[in-house]
Amino acid sequence: MPLVRAHNIAVSLDGFATGEGQSLRTPFGHAGVRLMEWFFPTATFQSLSGDRERRPVDTSAEPDDVFARRSFEGIGAEIMGANKFGPPGWQADPDWRGWWGDEPPFHSPVFVMTRATRPPIEVGETTFRFTDAVPDAVLAQAFEAAGGLDVRIGGGPTTVRAFMAAGLIDLLHVVQVPILLGRGVSLWAGLEGWEQGYDVESTSTPSGVTHLVFSRR
Amino acid sequence: MPLVRAHNIAVSLDGFATGEGQSLRTPFGHAGVRLMEWFFPTATFQSLSGDRERRPVDTSAEPDDVFARRSFEGIGAEIMGANKFGPPGWQADPDWRGWWGDEPPFHSPVFVMTRATRPPIEVGETTFRFTDAVPDAVLAQAFEAAGGLDVRIGGGPTTVRAFMAAGLIDLLHVVQVPILLGRGVSLWAGLEGWEQGYDVESTSTPSGVTHLVFSRR
Repeated sequence: MPLVRAHNIAVSLDGFATGEGQSLRTPFGHAGVRLMEWFFPTATFQSLSGDRERRPVDTSAEPDDVFARRSFEGIGAEIMGANKFGPPGWQADPDWRGWWGDEPPFHSPVFVMTRATRPPIEVGETTFRFTDAVPDAVLAQAFEAAGGLDVRIGGGPTTVRAFMAAGLIDLLHVVQVPILLGRGVSLWAGLEGWEQGYDVESTSTPSGVTHLVFSRR
Repeated sequence: MPLVRAHNIAVSLDGFATGEGQSLRTPFGHAGVRLMEWFFPTATFQSLSGDRERRPVDTSAEPDDVFARRSFEGIGAEIMGANKFGPPGWQADPDWRGWWGDEPPFHSPVFVMTRATRPPIEVGETTFRFTDAVPDAVLAQAFEAAGGLDVRIGGGPTTVRAFMAAGLIDLLHVVQVPILLGRGVSLWAGLEGWEQGYDVESTSTPSGVTHLVFSRR
């Protein structure tokens, strides 16, 4: 049975998965890139990013890379929220094609959940489809498009949380970053007891983060 | 220079260090003992607890015990909040002497922060003193009583948070437990950016928890 998976969801100690005040210039709000510093030195990030963003390879990031790269294995389709596809208000811009330039790193169908639907667009090897359906209906579409592979819930945190609340997540990989953001979008709000029904493995790495993997029992 | 330390402060993934609805019968509210399951099999807990609470020794708890036992090393005095000393309303009971029976595990002066002060009481080797002073004034008293040793901030979370907010903590050991309590007393509220000025080490253990040690730079 194909699975529903979410990976590389980074949260602060106080549970925020993105900051407050998201905009075109600050896609993660006041958090900046602090939740992603662990990711940049990984081989997975280096293979995704253009030359401009490349940093020296850091072998101490190999344990983090073990987790990071799983996000890209065995995925046939992605579901993302409107806030991942663009900054607040992108729906008013008919030319907005996502943050990712000419070759987005998805290489598969992507379902964007938004009330303001529009026809599909193709960007490189990725097709973006826009849907206002509820989580389990979007998931049915995504499984059909995934051709027997797994479906990734790509974020942002509001979307991951919606799929968690609906009981639709089979595997969740969270990266706990030891910082206190104080405010932003919580990954955990309203999910009391969610961990019941999951096995969890915790792994700390030299970068200082802790990888938590929840797998449905 | 003696230090101000807090140890074994267990928090859920969503940042709650105790549950909602604390009472005489439910000292940790709806959380029950879920934040302390990692602690019970440790040799440190076994050495503290009476026969009634003893459980089989569990060698897989040794990594947790490395962290747990540090709380009891080099401490000359403890400061605790009113909510650690007793259930809500204990101040109205002149005979309340704490939760810990005839031999509390402190063996040193303990300063209880409460608006309803009363004369000191001696219970076994522990003297409880009651003070309505602010954190830095209580700390001055505690250092004087500690005879050159460190002072422990013993909890509850509201008290630890107050000392964190006042910049008074030199070492904080937090135990992240991978559960979602949903509600309760937050350890992290109002502490945006607190981690700046601290080095942090994260260590996951076989029990599934992660120990985070913040040390002032």
